[in-house]
Amino acid sequence: MNSDSFATAVILAGGSGARMGEGIPDKILHPINGKPLIQYCFEAFSQSATVDSLTIVYRDSAQRDLLEPLVPDSRFSRVDWAEGGAQRQDSVWAGFSAIQPNCPVVLIHDGARPLIDPSTIDRAAVAARNYGAACVARKVVDTLKQIAPASDDGFQLATQDRDQIRAMETPQAFRFQLIRDAYRATIESGKTITDDLSAIEDQHLSVQLIESATPNPKLTQPNDLLWFEHLLNHRAQ
Amino acid sequence: MNSDSFATAVILAGGSGARMGEGIPDKILHPINGKPLIQYCFEAFSQSATVDSLTIVYRDSAQRDLLEPLVPDSRFSRVDWAEGGAQRQDSVWAGFSAIQPNCPVVLIHDGARPLIDPSTIDRAAVAARNYGAACVARKVVDTLKQIAPASDDGFQLATQDRDQIRAMETPQAFRFQLIRDAYRATIESGKTITDDLSAIEDQHLSVQLIESATPNPKLTQPNDLLWFEHLLNHRAQ
Repeated sequence: MNSDSFATAVILAGGSGARMGEGIPDKILHPINGKPLIQYCFEAFSQSATVDSLTIVYRDSAQRDLLEPLVPDSRFSRVDWAEGGAQRQDSVWAGFSAIQPNCPVVLIHDGARPLIDPSTIDRAAVAARNYGAACVARKVVDTLKQIAPASDDGFQLATQDRDQIRAMETPQAFRFQLIRDAYRATIESGKTITDDLSAIEDQHLSVQLIESATPNPKLTQPNDLLWFEHLLNHRAQ
Repeated sequence: MNSDSFATAVILAGGSGARMGEGIPDKILHPINGKPLIQYCFEAFSQSATVDSLTIVYRDSAQRDLLEPLVPDSRFSRVDWAEGGAQRQDSVWAGFSAIQPNCPVVLIHDGARPLIDPSTIDRAAVAARNYGAACVARKVVDTLKQIAPASDDGFQLATQDRDQIRAMETPQAFRFQLIRDAYRATIESGKTITDDLSAIEDQHLSVQLIESATPNPKLTQPNDLLWFEHLLNHRAQ
Protein backbone atom coordinates (compact mmCIF):
# COMPACT_ATOMS: atom_id res chain seq x y z
CA MET A 1 0.00 0.00 0.00
CA ASN A 2 1.15 3.52 -0.67
CA SER A 3 -0.48 6.94 -0.51
CA ASP A 4 -1.65 6.74 -4.12
CA SER A 5 -3.47 3.45 -3.70
CA PHE A 6 -7.16 3.63 -4.50
CA ALA A 7 -8.61 0.12 -4.80
CA THR A 8 -10.11 -2.45 -2.49
CA ALA A 9 -9.93 -6.19 -3.11
CA VAL A 10 -12.65 -8.71 -2.33
CA ILE A 11 -10.99 -12.08 -1.75
CA LEU A 12 -13.38 -15.01 -2.07
CA ALA A 13 -11.96 -17.44 0.45
CA GLY A 14 -15.06 -19.47 1.27
CA GLY A 15 -15.37 -21.27 -2.05
CA SER A 16 -18.30 -23.38 -3.07
CA GLY A 17 -15.91 -26.18 -3.89
CA ALA A 18 -18.33 -28.23 -5.95
CA ARG A 19 -15.43 -29.69 -7.95
CA MET A 20 -13.12 -30.14 -4.97
CA GLY A 21 -15.77 -31.78 -2.83
CA GLU A 22 -16.07 -30.94 0.82
CA GLY A 23 -12.32 -30.45 1.05
CA ILE A 24 -11.93 -27.01 -0.53
CA PRO A 25 -11.76 -24.88 2.61
CA ASP A 26 -8.95 -27.12 3.74
CA LYS A 27 -7.28 -27.02 0.33
CA ILE A 28 -6.85 -23.26 0.28
CA LEU A 29 -5.37 -23.68 3.76
CA HIS A 30 -3.08 -26.46 2.54
CA PRO A 31 0.48 -25.46 3.43
CA ILE A 32 3.03 -25.10 0.65
CA ASN A 33 6.51 -24.35 1.96
CA GLY A 34 4.93 -23.95 5.37
CA LYS A 35 2.52 -21.28 4.13
CA PRO A 36 -1.20 -21.86 3.54
CA LEU A 37 -2.14 -21.44 -0.11
CA ILE A 38 -4.51 -18.51 0.55
CA GLN A 39 -1.72 -16.59 2.24
CA TYR A 40 0.02 -16.25 -1.14
CA CYS A 41 -3.06 -14.31 -2.32
CA PHE A 42 -3.09 -12.04 0.70
CA GLU A 43 0.59 -11.28 0.23
CA ALA A 44 0.26 -10.52 -3.49
CA PHE A 45 -2.44 -7.95 -2.74
CA SER A 46 -0.41 -6.50 0.13
CA GLN A 47 2.46 -5.93 -2.30
CA SER A 48 0.28 -4.23 -4.89
CA ALA A 49 0.73 -0.48 -5.36
CA THR A 50 -2.98 0.14 -6.02
CA VAL A 51 -4.81 -1.89 -3.36
CA ASP A 52 -5.18 -0.27 0.05
CA SER A 53 -7.84 -2.43 1.68
CA LEU A 54 -9.19 -5.97 1.70
CA THR A 55 -12.57 -7.51 2.20
CA ILE A 56 -12.27 -11.20 2.91
CA VAL A 57 -15.32 -13.34 2.29
CA TYR A 58 -15.16 -16.42 4.51
CA ARG A 59 -17.24 -19.53 4.81
CA ASP A 60 -18.05 -19.73 8.49
CA SER A 61 -16.63 -18.48 11.76
CA ALA A 62 -14.43 -21.54 12.21
CA GLN A 63 -12.79 -20.82 8.87
CA ARG A 64 -12.45 -17.10 9.68
CA ASP A 65 -10.51 -18.04 12.82
CA LEU A 66 -8.04 -19.93 10.64
CA LEU A 67 -7.76 -17.14 8.06
CA GLU A 68 -7.27 -14.17 10.39
CA PRO A 69 -3.67 -14.91 11.41
CA LEU A 70 -2.68 -15.19 7.73
CA VAL A 71 -3.58 -11.62 6.75
CA PRO A 72 -0.75 -9.04 6.79
CA ASP A 73 -3.10 -6.41 8.33
CA SER A 74 -0.50 -3.74 8.75
CA ARG A 75 -0.02 -3.52 5.01
CA PHE A 76 -3.64 -2.39 4.51
CA SER A 77 -5.54 0.67 5.70
CA ARG A 78 -8.38 -1.67 6.66
CA VAL A 79 -9.38 -5.31 6.46
CA ASP A 80 -13.06 -6.18 6.55
CA TRP A 81 -14.70 -9.58 6.83
CA ALA A 82 -17.95 -10.82 5.35
CA GLU A 83 -19.61 -14.21 5.66
CA GLY A 84 -20.20 -15.77 2.24
CA GLY A 85 -23.45 -17.03 0.78
CA ALA A 86 -24.68 -20.12 -1.00
CA GLN A 87 -23.53 -19.13 -4.49
CA ARG A 88 -20.51 -17.20 -5.71
CA GLN A 89 -22.63 -14.15 -6.48
CA ASP A 90 -24.07 -14.15 -2.96
CA SER A 91 -20.54 -14.13 -1.58
CA VAL A 92 -19.49 -11.25 -3.80
CA TRP A 93 -22.56 -9.29 -2.75
CA ALA A 94 -21.79 -9.97 0.91
CA GLY A 95 -18.30 -8.62 0.28
CA PHE A 96 -19.68 -5.47 -1.39
CA SER A 97 -21.77 -4.76 1.71
CA ALA A 98 -18.58 -4.43 3.75
CA ILE A 99 -16.93 -1.94 1.37
CA GLN A 100 -16.89 1.82 1.96
CA PRO A 101 -19.46 3.29 -0.48
CA ASN A 102 -17.01 5.89 -1.81
CA CYS A 103 -14.41 3.28 -2.81
CA PRO A 104 -13.51 4.05 -6.44
CA VAL A 105 -12.35 0.62 -7.64
CA VAL A 106 -12.96 -2.94 -6.49
CA LEU A 107 -11.08 -6.06 -7.53
CA ILE A 108 -12.76 -9.43 -7.04
CA HIS A 109 -10.38 -12.36 -6.71
CA ASP A 110 -10.77 -16.12 -6.28
CA GLY A 111 -8.89 -17.18 -3.16
CA ALA A 112 -8.01 -20.38 -5.00
CA ARG A 113 -5.71 -18.46 -7.40
CA PRO A 114 -2.58 -18.07 -5.27
CA LEU A 115 -0.24 -17.34 -8.19
CA ILE A 116 -1.57 -13.88 -8.94
CA ASP A 117 1.24 -11.33 -8.90
CA PRO A 118 1.20 -7.69 -7.69
CA SER A 119 1.92 -6.12 -11.08
CA THR A 120 -0.99 -7.94 -12.76
CA ILE A 121 -3.24 -6.79 -9.91
CA ASP A 122 -2.09 -3.21 -10.48
CA ARG A 123 -2.63 -3.35 -14.23
CA ALA A 124 -6.20 -4.57 -13.67
CA ALA A 125 -6.90 -1.88 -11.05
CA VAL A 126 -5.56 0.96 -13.20
CA ALA A 127 -7.46 -0.24 -16.27
CA ALA A 128 -10.69 -0.42 -14.25
CA ARG A 129 -10.17 3.11 -12.91
CA ASN A 130 -9.50 4.46 -16.40
CA TYR A 131 -12.07 2.50 -18.38
CA GLY A 132 -14.62 1.06 -15.94
CA ALA A 133 -14.02 -2.68 -16.19
CA ALA A 134 -11.02 -5.00 -16.60
CA CYS A 135 -10.29 -8.68 -16.27
CA VAL A 136 -7.26 -10.92 -16.20
CA ALA A 137 -7.80 -13.31 -19.11
CA ARG A 138 -5.79 -15.72 -21.20
CA LYS A 139 -5.83 -17.21 -24.67
CA VAL A 140 -6.85 -20.83 -25.05
CA VAL A 141 -4.28 -23.18 -26.58
CA ASP A 142 -6.47 -26.12 -27.56
CA THR A 143 -9.11 -26.21 -30.26
CA LEU A 144 -12.49 -25.56 -28.63
CA LYS A 145 -15.66 -27.24 -29.86
CA GLN A 146 -19.26 -26.60 -29.05
CA ILE A 147 -20.86 -29.95 -28.27
CA ALA A 148 -24.42 -31.16 -28.76
CA PRO A 149 -25.45 -34.67 -27.68
CA ALA A 150 -26.10 -37.12 -30.53
CA SER A 151 -28.29 -40.23 -30.40
CA ASP A 152 -25.44 -42.75 -29.89
CA ASP A 153 -23.76 -41.32 -26.74
CA GLY A 154 -21.50 -39.25 -28.99
CA PHE A 155 -21.64 -35.55 -29.79
CA GLN A 156 -22.07 -33.29 -32.75
CA LEU A 157 -19.19 -30.83 -32.68
CA ALA A 158 -18.78 -27.31 -34.00
CA THR A 159 -15.37 -25.63 -33.94
CA GLN A 160 -15.12 -22.31 -32.13
CA ASP A 161 -12.75 -19.64 -33.41
CA ARG A 162 -10.28 -19.66 -30.53
CA ASP A 163 -8.82 -16.31 -31.56
CA GLN A 164 -12.17 -14.83 -30.55
CA ILE A 165 -12.36 -16.60 -27.19
CA ARG A 166 -10.61 -15.87 -23.90
CA ALA A 167 -10.68 -17.76 -20.60
CA MET A 168 -11.51 -15.42 -17.73
CA GLU A 169 -9.37 -15.53 -14.61
CA THR A 170 -9.35 -13.15 -11.66
CA PRO A 171 -9.02 -10.50 -10.44
CA GLN A 172 -11.88 -8.91 -12.30
CA ALA A 173 -11.79 -5.17 -11.59
CA PHE A 174 -14.47 -2.49 -11.78
CA ARG A 175 -15.44 0.99 -10.76
CA PHE A 176 -17.24 0.09 -7.57
CA GLN A 177 -20.52 1.87 -8.21
CA LEU A 178 -20.82 0.29 -11.66
CA ILE A 179 -20.39 -3.29 -10.47
CA ARG A 180 -22.41 -2.82 -7.29
CA ASP A 181 -25.40 -1.56 -9.28
CA ALA A 182 -25.00 -4.37 -11.80
CA TYR A 183 -24.82 -7.02 -9.09
CA ARG A 184 -27.91 -5.62 -7.40
CA ALA A 185 -29.80 -5.92 -10.68
CA THR A 186 -28.47 -9.46 -11.26
CA ILE A 187 -29.51 -10.65 -7.83
CA GLU A 188 -32.93 -9.02 -8.10
CA SER A 189 -33.43 -10.72 -11.48
CA GLY A 190 -32.76 -14.18 -10.00
CA LYS A 191 -30.05 -14.95 -12.58
CA THR A 192 -27.05 -17.13 -11.73
CA ILE A 193 -23.65 -15.96 -12.98
CA THR A 194 -20.24 -17.71 -12.81
CA ASP A 195 -18.07 -14.61 -13.01
CA ASP A 196 -18.39 -10.91 -12.24
CA LEU A 197 -18.23 -9.64 -15.80
CA SER A 198 -21.45 -11.49 -16.49
CA ALA A 199 -23.20 -8.98 -14.21
CA ILE A 200 -22.43 -6.13 -16.64
CA GLU A 201 -22.81 -8.14 -19.85
CA ASP A 202 -26.30 -6.83 -20.58
CA GLN A 203 -24.89 -3.30 -20.57
CA HIS A 204 -22.52 -4.04 -23.47
CA LEU A 205 -19.70 -2.12 -21.81
CA SER A 206 -16.19 -2.37 -23.11
CA VAL A 207 -13.84 -4.45 -20.92
CA GLN A 208 -10.04 -4.20 -20.81
CA LEU A 209 -8.40 -7.63 -20.94
CA ILE A 210 -5.15 -8.03 -19.01
CA GLU A 211 -2.88 -10.95 -19.83
CA SER A 212 -1.19 -12.29 -16.73
CA ALA A 213 2.59 -12.34 -17.07
CA THR A 214 2.71 -15.73 -15.33
CA PRO A 215 0.29 -18.68 -15.06
CA ASN A 216 -2.65 -17.84 -12.78
CA PRO A 217 -4.63 -21.09 -12.53
CA LYS A 218 -7.45 -21.85 -10.10
CA LEU A 219 -7.11 -24.78 -7.73
CA THR A 220 -10.05 -27.01 -8.60
CA GLN A 221 -9.01 -30.59 -7.93
CA PRO A 222 -7.07 -32.07 -5.03
CA ASN A 223 -4.47 -33.53 -7.38
CA ASP A 224 -3.68 -30.02 -8.66
CA LEU A 225 -1.88 -29.33 -5.37
CA LEU A 226 1.45 -30.75 -6.48
CA TRP A 227 1.33 -28.67 -9.63
CA PHE A 228 0.63 -25.50 -7.59
CA GLU A 229 3.47 -26.35 -5.27
CA HIS A 230 5.72 -26.64 -8.28
CA LEU A 231 4.56 -23.33 -9.76
CA LEU A 232 4.93 -21.49 -6.46
CA ASN A 233 8.41 -22.90 -5.96
CA HIS A 234 9.60 -21.97 -9.43
CA ARG A 235 8.02 -18.63 -10.12
CA ALA A 236 10.24 -15.65 -10.69
CA GLN A 237 11.05 -13.85 -7.45
CA MET B 1 1.16 -54.66 -29.01
CA ASN B 2 -0.75 -57.91 -28.89
CA SER B 3 -2.43 -60.10 -31.46
CA ASP B 4 -5.74 -58.26 -31.11
CA SER B 5 -4.29 -54.84 -31.80
CA PHE B 6 -5.80 -53.11 -34.81
CA ALA B 7 -4.81 -49.44 -34.86
CA THR B 8 -1.96 -47.37 -36.20
CA ALA B 9 -0.81 -44.12 -34.63
CA VAL B 10 0.45 -41.07 -36.49
CA ILE B 11 2.76 -39.14 -34.17
CA LEU B 12 3.30 -35.54 -35.21
CA ALA B 13 6.87 -34.94 -34.10
CA GLY B 14 7.87 -32.12 -36.45
CA GLY B 15 5.69 -29.42 -34.97
CA SER B 16 5.13 -26.01 -36.47
CA GLY B 17 6.12 -24.45 -33.19
CA ALA B 18 4.75 -21.00 -33.93
CA ARG B 19 4.22 -20.41 -30.20
CA MET B 20 7.49 -21.99 -29.12
CA GLY B 21 9.55 -20.14 -31.68
CA GLU B 22 12.30 -21.90 -33.55
CA GLY B 23 13.04 -24.03 -30.51
CA ILE B 24 10.23 -26.57 -30.70
CA PRO B 25 12.09 -29.45 -32.35
CA ASP B 26 14.61 -29.19 -29.55
CA LYS B 27 11.92 -28.90 -26.89
CA ILE B 28 10.29 -32.23 -27.71
CA LEU B 29 13.81 -33.65 -27.51
CA HIS B 30 14.43 -31.94 -24.17
CA PRO B 31 15.48 -34.63 -21.69
CA ILE B 32 13.39 -35.16 -18.58
CA ASN B 33 14.90 -37.73 -16.23
CA GLY B 34 17.40 -38.47 -18.98
CA LYS B 35 14.66 -39.27 -21.49
CA PRO B 36 13.67 -36.94 -24.35
CA LEU B 37 10.10 -35.69 -24.01
CA ILE B 38 8.90 -37.34 -27.26
CA GLN B 39 10.09 -40.72 -26.03
CA TYR B 40 7.33 -40.66 -23.40
CA CYS B 41 4.83 -40.56 -26.30
CA PHE B 42 6.46 -43.43 -28.13
CA GLU B 43 6.45 -45.53 -24.98
CA ALA B 44 2.81 -44.82 -24.17
CA PHE B 45 1.78 -46.03 -27.63
CA SER B 46 4.06 -49.06 -27.34
CA GLN B 47 2.26 -50.02 -24.12
CA SER B 48 -1.20 -49.65 -25.66
CA ALA B 49 -3.18 -52.84 -26.29
CA THR B 50 -4.76 -51.53 -29.49
CA VAL B 51 -1.91 -49.88 -31.42
CA ASP B 52 0.29 -52.18 -33.47
CA SER B 53 2.15 -49.72 -35.70
CA LEU B 54 3.45 -46.18 -35.76
CA THR B 55 3.88 -43.56 -38.44
CA ILE B 56 6.20 -40.83 -37.24
CA VAL B 57 6.00 -37.49 -39.00
CA TYR B 58 9.32 -35.70 -38.68
CA ARG B 59 10.56 -32.27 -39.64
CA ASP B 60 13.72 -32.95 -41.60
CA SER B 61 16.31 -35.68 -41.94
CA ALA B 62 18.48 -34.22 -39.19
CA GLN B 63 15.56 -34.45 -36.77
CA ARG B 64 14.70 -37.98 -37.96
CA ASP B 65 18.24 -39.07 -37.08
CA LEU B 66 17.66 -37.87 -33.53
CA LEU B 67 14.22 -39.48 -33.25
CA GLU B 68 15.04 -42.94 -34.60
CA PRO B 69 16.98 -44.24 -31.58
CA LEU B 70 14.09 -43.24 -29.30
CA VAL B 71 11.47 -45.53 -30.87
CA PRO B 72 10.95 -48.94 -29.23
CA ASP B 73 10.66 -50.60 -32.68
CA SER B 74 10.37 -54.13 -31.40
CA ARG B 75 7.09 -53.31 -29.70
CA PHE B 76 5.44 -52.51 -33.05
CA SER B 77 4.73 -54.63 -36.12
CA ARG B 78 6.06 -51.75 -38.20
CA VAL B 79 7.28 -48.17 -37.85
CA ASP B 80 7.00 -45.86 -40.85
CA TRP B 81 8.43 -42.39 -41.30
CA ALA B 82 7.03 -39.43 -43.22
CA GLU B 83 8.46 -35.97 -43.71
CA GLY B 84 6.05 -33.30 -42.50
CA GLY B 85 4.68 -30.35 -44.41
CA ALA B 86 4.23 -26.63 -43.86
CA GLN B 87 0.98 -26.84 -41.92
CA ARG B 88 -0.34 -29.40 -39.44
CA GLN B 89 -2.79 -30.77 -42.00
CA ASP B 90 0.01 -31.29 -44.54
CA SER B 91 1.92 -33.28 -41.95
CA VAL B 92 -1.09 -35.45 -41.14
CA TRP B 93 -1.65 -36.08 -44.83
CA ALA B 94 2.01 -37.04 -45.26
CA GLY B 95 1.56 -39.50 -42.40
CA PHE B 96 -1.56 -41.00 -44.01
CA SER B 97 0.40 -41.67 -47.20
CA ALA B 98 2.69 -44.01 -45.25
CA ILE B 99 -0.17 -46.05 -43.72
CA GLN B 100 -1.30 -49.41 -45.10
CA PRO B 101 -4.60 -48.74 -46.94
CA ASN B 102 -6.42 -51.57 -45.15
CA CYS B 103 -5.62 -50.20 -41.68
CA PRO B 104 -8.95 -50.06 -39.82
CA VAL B 105 -8.27 -47.31 -37.28
CA VAL B 106 -5.80 -44.42 -37.10
CA LEU B 107 -4.97 -42.30 -34.08
CA ILE B 108 -3.39 -38.89 -34.65
CA HIS B 109 -1.32 -37.58 -31.76
CA ASP B 110 0.64 -34.39 -31.04
CA GLY B 111 4.21 -35.34 -30.19
CA ALA B 112 4.18 -32.43 -27.72
CA ARG B 113 1.69 -34.27 -25.46
CA PRO B 114 4.00 -36.66 -23.61
CA LEU B 115 1.59 -37.36 -20.74
CA ILE B 116 -0.85 -39.44 -22.74
CA ASP B 117 -1.39 -42.83 -21.10
CA PRO B 118 -1.94 -46.25 -22.73
CA SER B 119 -5.45 -46.79 -21.39
CA THR B 120 -6.70 -43.45 -22.74
CA ILE B 121 -5.17 -44.34 -26.11
CA ASP B 122 -7.02 -47.66 -26.05
CA ARG B 123 -10.34 -46.11 -25.11
CA ALA B 124 -10.03 -43.70 -28.06
CA ALA B 125 -9.06 -46.49 -30.47
CA VAL B 126 -11.92 -48.77 -29.43
CA ALA B 127 -14.46 -45.93 -29.61
CA ALA B 128 -13.25 -45.03 -33.11
CA ARG B 129 -13.54 -48.65 -34.25
CA ASN B 130 -17.06 -48.95 -32.84
CA TYR B 131 -18.43 -45.53 -33.76
CA GLY B 132 -16.16 -44.01 -36.43
CA ALA B 133 -14.61 -41.05 -34.61
CA ALA B 134 -13.36 -40.30 -31.11
CA CYS B 135 -11.29 -37.63 -29.40
CA VAL B 136 -9.65 -37.09 -26.06
CA ALA B 137 -11.26 -33.91 -24.73
CA ARG B 138 -11.62 -32.09 -21.44
CA LYS B 139 -14.01 -29.71 -19.75
CA VAL B 140 -12.93 -26.10 -19.36
CA VAL B 141 -12.73 -24.77 -15.80
CA ASP B 142 -12.74 -21.03 -16.41
CA THR B 143 -15.60 -18.93 -17.73
CA LEU B 144 -15.14 -18.51 -21.49
CA LYS B 145 -16.10 -15.32 -23.28
CA GLN B 146 -16.39 -14.52 -26.93
CA ILE B 147 -14.55 -11.26 -27.53
CA ALA B 148 -15.17 -8.53 -30.07
CA PRO B 149 -12.89 -5.45 -30.23
CA ALA B 150 -14.44 -2.22 -28.99
CA SER B 151 -13.39 1.31 -29.96
CA ASP B 152 -11.28 2.00 -26.82
CA ASP B 153 -8.81 -0.94 -26.93
CA GLY B 154 -11.25 -2.94 -24.83
CA PHE B 155 -13.59 -5.74 -25.85
CA GLN B 156 -17.26 -6.49 -25.89
CA LEU B 157 -17.70 -9.85 -24.19
CA ALA B 158 -20.32 -12.55 -24.49
CA THR B 159 -20.32 -15.48 -22.07
CA GLN B 160 -20.14 -18.95 -23.58
CA ASP B 161 -21.96 -21.82 -21.88
CA ARG B 162 -18.93 -23.82 -20.77
CA ASP B 163 -21.03 -26.93 -20.19
CA GLN B 164 -21.46 -27.03 -23.95
CA ILE B 165 -17.77 -26.55 -24.76
CA ARG B 166 -14.87 -28.99 -24.64
CA ALA B 167 -11.16 -28.44 -25.29
CA MET B 168 -9.85 -30.96 -27.81
CA GLU B 169 -6.64 -32.80 -27.00
CA THR B 170 -5.10 -35.75 -28.81
CA PRO B 171 -5.14 -38.53 -29.80
CA GLN B 172 -8.04 -38.01 -32.15
CA ALA B 173 -9.06 -41.42 -33.52
CA PHE B 174 -10.93 -42.43 -36.66
CA ARG B 175 -11.78 -45.26 -38.99
CA PHE B 176 -8.95 -44.74 -41.43
CA GLN B 177 -10.95 -44.59 -44.63
CA LEU B 178 -13.32 -42.03 -43.14
CA ILE B 179 -10.62 -39.58 -42.06
CA ARG B 180 -8.46 -40.12 -45.13
CA ASP B 181 -11.33 -39.23 -47.44
CA ALA B 182 -12.23 -36.23 -45.27
CA TYR B 183 -8.64 -34.96 -45.27
CA ARG B 184 -8.41 -35.33 -49.02
CA ALA B 185 -11.53 -33.20 -49.38
CA THR B 186 -10.21 -30.62 -46.90
CA ILE B 187 -6.88 -30.28 -48.67
CA GLU B 188 -8.53 -30.05 -52.08
CA SER B 189 -10.84 -27.33 -50.76
CA GLY B 190 -7.88 -25.20 -49.61
CA LYS B 191 -9.25 -24.89 -46.06
CA THR B 192 -6.94 -24.65 -43.03
CA ILE B 193 -7.87 -26.73 -39.98
CA THR B 194 -6.28 -26.80 -36.51
CA ASP B 195 -7.38 -30.29 -35.50
CA ASP B 196 -8.40 -33.49 -37.24
CA LEU B 197 -12.05 -33.48 -36.22
CA SER B 198 -12.48 -30.30 -38.22
CA ALA B 199 -11.94 -32.39 -41.37
CA ILE B 200 -15.17 -34.32 -40.72
CA GLU B 201 -17.16 -31.43 -39.26
CA ASP B 202 -19.08 -30.77 -42.48
CA GLN B 203 -20.35 -34.35 -42.38
CA HIS B 204 -22.10 -33.84 -39.02
CA LEU B 205 -20.93 -37.21 -37.76
CA SER B 206 -21.24 -38.11 -34.12
CA VAL B 207 -17.94 -38.11 -32.18
CA GLN B 208 -17.20 -40.02 -28.97
CA LEU B 209 -15.47 -37.82 -26.40
CA ILE B 210 -12.96 -39.52 -24.11
CA GLU B 211 -11.94 -37.82 -20.90
CA SER B 212 -8.30 -38.44 -20.10
CA ALA B 213 -7.82 -39.95 -16.66
CA THR B 214 -4.80 -37.72 -16.08
CA PRO B 215 -3.72 -34.26 -17.38
CA ASN B 216 -2.68 -34.40 -21.04
CA PRO B 217 -1.42 -30.89 -21.83
CA LYS B 218 0.48 -29.81 -24.93
CA LEU B 219 3.91 -28.25 -24.55
CA THR B 220 3.54 -24.83 -26.11
CA GLN B 221 5.91 -22.49 -24.28
CA PRO B 222 9.49 -23.03 -23.15
CA ASN B 223 8.58 -22.20 -19.55
CA ASP B 224 6.08 -25.07 -19.53
CA LEU B 225 9.01 -27.49 -19.36
CA LEU B 226 9.32 -27.42 -15.57
CA TRP B 227 5.63 -28.12 -15.21
CA PHE B 228 5.88 -31.09 -17.59
CA GLU B 229 8.85 -32.38 -15.66
CA HIS B 230 6.80 -32.15 -12.51
CA LEU B 231 3.80 -33.93 -14.04
CA LEU B 232 5.97 -36.70 -15.51
CA ASN B 233 7.70 -37.22 -12.19
CA HIS B 234 4.50 -37.40 -10.18
CA ARG B 235 2.12 -39.29 -12.40
CA ALA B 236 0.75 -42.58 -11.18
CA GLN B 237 2.91 -45.50 -12.25
